[in-house]
Amino acid sequence: MDDKVTIENDAQRLPAIDDEFGGVVVEMKQPMDSDVFRMLLKTSMSHWTLQGKKGVWIKLPIELSNLVDAAVKEGFWYHHAEPKYLMLLYWIPQTVNPIPGNASHIARVGAIVLNDKREMLVVQEKMGILRGIWKISTGIIHEGEDICVGVVREVKEETGIDTEFVEVLAFSQEHKVFFGKSEILFMCMMRPLSFDIQIQETEIEAAQWMPLEEYASQLSPHEKGLRKYITELCMAKVKGRYSGYLPVPVASDADGNPSYIYLNQGELNKKLNELS
Amino acid sequence: MDDKVTIENDAQRLPAIDDEFGGVVVEMKQPMDSDVFRMLLKTSMSHWTLQGKKGVWIKLPIELSNLVDAAVKEGFWYHHAEPKYLMLLYWIPQTVNPIPGNASHIARVGAIVLNDKREMLVVQEKMGILRGIWKISTGIIHEGEDICVGVVREVKEETGIDTEFVEVLAFSQEHKVFFGKSEILFMCMMRPLSFDIQIQETEIEAAQWMPLEEYASQLSPHEKGLRKYITELCMAKVKGRYSGYLPVPVASDADGNPSYIYLNQGELNKKLNELS
Repeated sequence: MDDKVTIENDAQRLPAIDDEFGGVVVEMKQPMDSDVFRMLLKTSMSHWTLQGKKGVWIKLPIELSNLVDAAVKEGFWYHHAEPKYLMLLYWIPQTVNPIPGNASHIARVGAIVLNDKREMLVVQEKMGILRGIWKISTGIIHEGEDICVGVVREVKEETGIDTEFVEVLAFSQEHKVFFGKSEILFMCMMRPLSFDIQIQETEIEAAQWMPLEEYASQLSPHEKGLRKYITELCMAKVKGRYSGYLPVPVASDADGNPSYIYLNQGELNKKLNELS
Repeated sequence: MDDKVTIENDAQRLPAIDDEFGGVVVEMKQPMDSDVFRMLLKTSMSHWTLQGKKGVWIKLPIELSNLVDAAVKEGFWYHHAEPKYLMLLYWIPQTVNPIPGNASHIARVGAIVLNDKREMLVVQEKMGILRGIWKISTGIIHEGEDICVGVVREVKEETGIDTEFVEVLAFSQEHKVFFGKSEILFMCMMRPLSFDIQIQETEIEAAQWMPLEEYASQLSPHEKGLRKYITELCMAKVKGRYSGYLPVPVASDADGNPSYIYLNQGELNKKLNELS
């Protein structure tokens, strides 16, 4: 008898699973008429409110875009979207919604690739505001990609040069870069493993090995932007002993891949040895 | 005569402006019937295809959620969403879409706040997998917020302690943290400016000043995670001279706010002075 009641009730509600934070997640997979969906959502929301649930998530694959309007009409708002799905959210309690927003930052790398002749690998891009300017190779780190891996990929894609990651020399943070998002640029020291340039023709106009002094001479003495620091870091690195941050593996994710912590490993080890 | 033709044509298309990359942006603002929208979109797409346009963006405020389904039926997919709008995209050329995806990273800070008695500010969270464990105060950096500012805000919010930002000691990158997004955690050295703890009761169970040795003794000798490095960085910092990255202002955005580059400023200046 109890089982029967449960089944009847369930049939009038959307399928949902509890999350770890006192909320529920509805992951719609099968096509549904939007009026039916809205009716089930109303009933479900009453039920979850009585149960004291907090956040309600609805994940709609793009094939079920016919259901977006119904969810919004029931008070849901957008949390985030990826090409194949839209995630909607409703916060039931009469308190401020504490759920973090969408990802807020783009991670970009800049590759300082220096050969033994004190020449730096520079490119000119085909589009954008830096068109026609010799600059270091830069690119966006993908979701799930390590900084020290992504920068090797970017240099290879843009210039055909194989490189080995050495260290992060510095990073910068800039705001409102792409649809209001902030960007962190990691400046990476790279050791070249090959030297023959083959440019990626769709994005790159030209690439060359440029003497460091020539790169520096492009800059105005009043230059105060990142390019000033790229030059100074190069000079300090070539002639002095500026120490950057090295990646050290720290833990494994579910797939067994290590995460990395980037720190001044040489200095840390030296200090710890002095202490012990 | 020409004017009239233009007006008639325009009336059959969606309002659009050109972007810098050979595409167009449709920002819908007024309510519209979804069938009318779909018809106008069809006509517009034919026109933009003939014109050789590349990416077509449609920004729909959440009030116009009735138009999402029509755009998807015309082949658009989701690029990103924020609480108040959804951005859809279509790439007209027969080439791979080169437009970067949505922001991919969360920027988080961890605050290492040490007082003169070699005590570290630690908290216990009310929820999540670290519940019941003494840990440093951590939090998410907002879109548009500087790392060195956000970490001061987080410590204040969680513990009531006023602090001054000193430097970034290290950073780590972890994947699949929140809806598939990656996270970068910046470990920040902070100087306390006040000492009386007042916890934020909704998120924090308890907070205290804990002797460094006691914090370190919590860890298993086999600890290989971030906590091992937090402890080592603290020890090296207190007893040795581990040098982190300091923020240096580099440029101004449209609102006149500086961006920051974080680097080993002391070492850089020293090396550059030696060279000059």
